[in-house]
Amino acid sequence: MALIVQKYGGSSVADTEKIKRVARRVAETKGRGNRVVVVISALGDTTDRLVGLAKEICSCPPEREMDMLLSTGEQVSVALLSMAMHSLGHDAISFTGAQVGIVTDSAHTKAKIIDIRAERILEELEAGKVVIVAGFQGVSLDNNITTLGRGGSDTTAVALAAALHADLCEIYTDVDGIFTADPRVVPEARKLDRISYDEMLEMAATGARVMQLRSIEFARNYGVVIHVRSSFSEEEGTWISGAPERMEKAVVSGVTHDTGEAKITLKGVPDRPGIAAHLFRRLADANINVDMIIQNVSDNAQTDITFTLSLDDLPRAREILSVVADELGARSYDCDEDIAKVSLVGAGMKTHPGVAADMFEALAEEGINIEMISTSSIKISCVVRNNEVERAVRAVHRRFGLEHGLVQHE
Amino acid sequence: MALIVQKYGGSSVADTEKIKRVARRVAETKGRGNRVVVVISALGDTTDRLVGLAKEICSCPPEREMDMLLSTGEQVSVALLSMAMHSLGHDAISFTGAQVGIVTDSAHTKAKIIDIRAERILEELEAGKVVIVAGFQGVSLDNNITTLGRGGSDTTAVALAAALHADLCEIYTDVDGIFTADPRVVPEARKLDRISYDEMLEMAATGARVMQLRSIEFARNYGVVIHVRSSFSEEEGTWISGAPERMEKAVVSGVTHDTGEAKITLKGVPDRPGIAAHLFRRLADANINVDMIIQNVSDNAQTDITFTLSLDDLPRAREILSVVADELGARSYDCDEDIAKVSLVGAGMKTHPGVAADMFEALAEEGINIEMISTSSIKISCVVRNNEVERAVRAVHRRFGLEHGLVQHE
Repeated sequence: MALIVQKYGGSSVADTEKIKRVARRVAETKGRGNRVVVVISALGDTTDRLVGLAKEICSCPPEREMDMLLSTGEQVSVALLSMAMHSLGHDAISFTGAQVGIVTDSAHTKAKIIDIRAERILEELEAGKVVIVAGFQGVSLDNNITTLGRGGSDTTAVALAAALHADLCEIYTDVDGIFTADPRVVPEARKLDRISYDEMLEMAATGARVMQLRSIEFARNYGVVIHVRSSFSEEEGTWISGAPERMEKAVVSGVTHDTGEAKITLKGVPDRPGIAAHLFRRLADANINVDMIIQNVSDNAQTDITFTLSLDDLPRAREILSVVADELGARSYDCDEDIAKVSLVGAGMKTHPGVAADMFEALAEEGINIEMISTSSIKISCVVRNNEVERAVRAVHRRFGLEHGLVQHE
Repeated sequence: MALIVQKYGGSSVADTEKIKRVARRVAETKGRGNRVVVVISALGDTTDRLVGLAKEICSCPPEREMDMLLSTGEQVSVALLSMAMHSLGHDAISFTGAQVGIVTDSAHTKAKIIDIRAERILEELEAGKVVIVAGFQGVSLDNNITTLGRGGSDTTAVALAAALHADLCEIYTDVDGIFTADPRVVPEARKLDRISYDEMLEMAATGARVMQLRSIEFARNYGVVIHVRSSFSEEEGTWISGAPERMEKAVVSGVTHDTGEAKITLKGVPDRPGIAAHLFRRLADANINVDMIIQNVSDNAQTDITFTLSLDDLPRAREILSVVADELGARSYDCDEDIAKVSLVGAGMKTHPGVAADMFEALAEEGINIEMISTSSIKISCVVRNNEVERAVRAVHRRFGLEHGLVQHE
């Protein structure tokens, strides 16, 4: 008898008919003799509606109160799903994050889980019930309601799977799994049967939207086996685990892209120690995540620093730069919102430098200019013009023959 | 510096504009040097919308899950009001019932408060904050969310006022206070400046909808001074307290009416001990509140039992009666939904029997037939045909000259 954690996203519970469908799916899993914990998100557009109400009240609501407000969305979902389970004749019980002891730090709107006190869940499972937990939320040590940030329900599911030593964490979504590229951009993109945590991390970090980055880190740290699949079909999706079967091959798994970033360039900064530290400390203090960073020394003891960040953080970054640029004695700074990032992800890429060259060639042959390059052991990212990114994705996907299955690069 | 508990009902927080108005009112109270605890209900039609979602899922949702669902309504309200207070520059903090330790029994959908652990509220008041508490909800000892039943926010407010030893509990509503009759039925009805707990209890029990019955019982038991007033004006409303200034006078305070009841008659029941006990125990076990009860022995060792109950409980009562009527050997039973109740409420009425006679005469002069009569020390209720009740209210109101102020009956 396996213990399975299932997570259903907002599109899977968009209305009461869809909730009933989720209930039937959960009932089937239970019916096959499994113990089941379900994590769900808020109904469809609930979160947007609540955010809209808050904006009507004030432009900058306190984060503690935003958490108080937004956490109601998942509470509605879990109650409704529990009712649907009951009406199918299955005993079920719903819980808020606080009730099942999902303890977080106090960083409202982006809290991190620090402990899960899972006794209550285990008791109810023992009693034969399906346990339904509100995703996205927790409770701080001083008893305030917190939320885990966008996509936080994935993290709830993986963290519960880890705490409960579940056999499997199923992530139900509106796509069939993880693809070699976004099928809306590359129609011939192929679903991956399996992928390693590290590759999945890079896919998520570079633009694959299926799972939240943090939840994959969590899964890797605790060895939680994940199955990403569609809530609208019975087909197998993509398995994510720590045991890549093809460790020694320079395989590329997929091409991702991200149009949600901006590029900032600080020009004519004095070339002395501490400059970069000062700049990025100030951004970090404002909780702004910087993605790629490039610095080149030029001739006259001056340097340019270029970095990318989320478009969401750009307004706050501008405010900080208007001060920091002066503090650093920079000549000027530019913000460029018309960029996009195309990335190639694959295990073992580092030991096969030919991969990078192939990618750059593919872009060059399309006449696409590369503005920034960043690499890790298993990914290569290039910043290009926004309006060229889809062409870039298709060119790279084609170059590596990803539509035909995983390629060994010689 | 007084400690004031203010309660605002659903119509006072129907939309974000009204929430901002409530925030300004709270800010004024705070600005006059008071410490303020605010209790609010769900926004306007939120509860109906949530009930609608539940009905889409299943016809008879589990009560624990209904509480899980409905309690989100007030949580949204408190978060939004707290945001509105912040945007006015006032420090405020919102809480669910569970967070401020409103401990109840486990009777889901109609839980009773058994304890309030008010330390957190006192701490936050001490820190100078306005404390905003979700009405209508609590938490059971086994950490499940409970709700207090319809109008439960009044009970939350009064219970908090008692636990905090507040100087005053203000109930803000969409009417100006307690009236001698429903102004929609009797245009010349007059607002009462003050009323005793006992009279208010009878007014509420017999149809005055302004405050929930249980909350007035609570106020009486703990001596909480209540001021019922309009959230849309600055006028004084009606003060409810335990010190009626006119104890020795046979004063009638008001005429109430209730069209939300049905009458059930069990016919031809054997006249032997235990019959009534059996019937009403079975109804009580189903949590059905019976209002008036009349039993008349007829000639042939048989009797008829007639009683009234809420229309909401009628479907369940029918189910029970279909069994119990046989068990009791009753000839038949009738359900009559077309009744209404008109009541006259006033302190000291019992020692002035002329009051009852006056009321019956007033009805007789209008040609209105009385089907049932029930009296207490401070009220007389008569069941009449539903379509005659408004005429009955006007006749009784006129007879006692209530539009001119409190009358001494000689």
